[in-house]
Amino acid sequence: MHVTMDQEGRFLTLHAEAELRFHAIWLRDNAQDTETRAPGNGQRLIALRDIPDNTRIASVEAGETMVHVTFAPEQKSVAFSVEWLIAHAYDIKARADIGWLSDEISVWDAGLQADVPTAAFPSLSEDGATLAQWVEQVARFGFGKITGGPIQEGALFQVVDFFGFVRETNYGKHFDVRTEVNPTNLAFTGLGLQAHTDNPYRDPVPTVQVLYCLESSAAGGENMVVDGFACVRRLQEETPEYFDVLAQYCARFEYAGEAGVCLTSRRPLIELAPDGELIGVRFNNRSLAAVTDVPFDKMELWYAAYRRLGEIIDDPAMEVVFRLEPGEAFVVDNTRVLHARKAYSGTGTRWLQGCYADKDGLRSTRDALFRSTQEAAE
Amino acid sequence: MHVTMDQEGRFLTLHAEAELRFHAIWLRDNAQDTETRAPGNGQRLIALRDIPDNTRIASVEAGETMVHVTFAPEQKSVAFSVEWLIAHAYDIKARADIGWLSDEISVWDAGLQADVPTAAFPSLSEDGATLAQWVEQVARFGFGKITGGPIQEGALFQVVDFFGFVRETNYGKHFDVRTEVNPTNLAFTGLGLQAHTDNPYRDPVPTVQVLYCLESSAAGGENMVVDGFACVRRLQEETPEYFDVLAQYCARFEYAGEAGVCLTSRRPLIELAPDGELIGVRFNNRSLAAVTDVPFDKMELWYAAYRRLGEIIDDPAMEVVFRLEPGEAFVVDNTRVLHARKAYSGTGTRWLQGCYADKDGLRSTRDALFRSTQEAAE
Repeated sequence: MHVTMDQEGRFLTLHAEAELRFHAIWLRDNAQDTETRAPGNGQRLIALRDIPDNTRIASVEAGETMVHVTFAPEQKSVAFSVEWLIAHAYDIKARADIGWLSDEISVWDAGLQADVPTAAFPSLSEDGATLAQWVEQVARFGFGKITGGPIQEGALFQVVDFFGFVRETNYGKHFDVRTEVNPTNLAFTGLGLQAHTDNPYRDPVPTVQVLYCLESSAAGGENMVVDGFACVRRLQEETPEYFDVLAQYCARFEYAGEAGVCLTSRRPLIELAPDGELIGVRFNNRSLAAVTDVPFDKMELWYAAYRRLGEIIDDPAMEVVFRLEPGEAFVVDNTRVLHARKAYSGTGTRWLQGCYADKDGLRSTRDALFRSTQEAAE
Repeated sequence: MHVTMDQEGRFLTLHAEAELRFHAIWLRDNAQDTETRAPGNGQRLIALRDIPDNTRIASVEAGETMVHVTFAPEQKSVAFSVEWLIAHAYDIKARADIGWLSDEISVWDAGLQADVPTAAFPSLSEDGATLAQWVEQVARFGFGKITGGPIQEGALFQVVDFFGFVRETNYGKHFDVRTEVNPTNLAFTGLGLQAHTDNPYRDPVPTVQVLYCLESSAAGGENMVVDGFACVRRLQEETPEYFDVLAQYCARFEYAGEAGVCLTSRRPLIELAPDGELIGVRFNNRSLAAVTDVPFDKMELWYAAYRRLGEIIDDPAMEVVFRLEPGEAFVVDNTRVLHARKAYSGTGTRWLQGCYADKDGLRSTRDALFRSTQEAAE
């Protein structure tokens, strides 16, 4: 490996397939030696205030797989693996496209119908590889199904145990969705709900929802999911200014439907990271409050964009439909994938239990399982 | 009240102290009649798809306190209160300043030392007005203290019950911070920690933290809090490009210090809403991972900004210090206020229990208590 440094010691250049530059201050702050990072948990032991402001590279020496850097004025030598440096290179062209997505994510439409990420409950309990694959798919597609689980109250908590922790809310640790479908109320329950994300009036929103079926004797009532990221990217392709106006201005959401509760939030329908990564979608006609943060001269555009987004969400070409039988469940990324229930077409009962959880646990489980697989293979 | 409409029926103008225009589509979507909004819980019963695309104002009639609008083509008449319209007016100049703050928030520095928001545990349990005032202050200042609580394990959950729900994590429903301070380890525990926000490697972060004291026989070990919003606004005043670079690029955080856990996040140190509202600060030297989303030509600027922000955070002029005695606790908004522990100066033991919760519950409790006070007064 060939490595050079600039005359002032401000940065070094790794001459790999591309030329990758790394600043002295960045290298020093990211040193992996045991005085900088705790060997056990990897947490940094020093703060930036412990690193001299005038830190520079005094000398650099390259081996086959390691680069040895001596920093001045500390006169401290640290070794970096070339592999680690290449993996963490930042001397690369920044993404310029608004609405870009992480490689961990794949968008989908109705074409995913035949490939719904599904795993059997007993396999998830017993087999780390099945769990690893399933959580990877749930993180990738934003939803996943579980079959063959116990038909008993509270079994949904065992689903959460696979990857995280329940987020309790004013609705409880869990909530019950029971429906008696008979000719008298068929018309009403037959109305269905527009696909939506749950609880956008909460901040932070619950980032994962679990719905677990315990009874299902009524025909119909299928569950439907729509990829909110696919929908807003289609909106962006059709009419870029629609995407932009929904990302640039905050909407408001509210729920004050029970005593002691007055939940409000101010967030955009399309949420971007500061560098344009698409990181969240909120869509819920029932709890959208009066939108007051869009200026007068943009309000008609905002409403046109909101209407078109709703039409895309309602387009059957975007939806994946599945039916939950007793002992089956689905998990949904509530920052991305919208869900709804289809109309019932026969009499009977339906009983689901639902709860909220968080996505960081899902991603952590995925990465920890991947890491342990890698370590086992080494 | 004088109200006019434009020739096409696209909007009406309320001639109040200022002229306030409201679009037909906005008015129709925000109608408060019982066909549009559920009388019980206030949730919207229709979606935008149920409102004609070519909705316009057919006629408008103004009374003293109400405005009656008839919409075409539905031929639907809806009454709006003038008070509600003025409260929800959006025909106003948008905020142009980056880093603006909601009126609900007051920034502070060491000057708040004598006025730490504090309430007695028994009063919070028994007196709605005390609870209302305390949660308003915690939401406003981002932290608050409780005195006179029970000295028993798990009492911190009673603190959470005042306003919300515990956010369980891989650290459990709660965690214990026990310190034996003696001459042998005094030097080590005396190191102290730089002020930080907790768990920035989680996404969503736990937005509230509770720390509850059960034992405190060692001298020193005071708790210290710093207003992250005040710090980043000071950074902005001193060097606007420092503020901007920390807001425009994502940092990365990681914690993989125990089996089965690999938590990672990609978020900026300074988080803004799309319209520039300051909504979050993340600062934690221990769990900052290699920052790879800042381009090469901005990295030295980013590090200079990060260093200066750390210096401001370390400035005693920014900090409020208090000591927790057994039965005392503090609550902190973990999206805004940094906390730390000062060094110990004597031998003894110290035992705190901590847990996480969420801010939406805090704000909901505040607003619900305010609403019930208003209703009682009417």
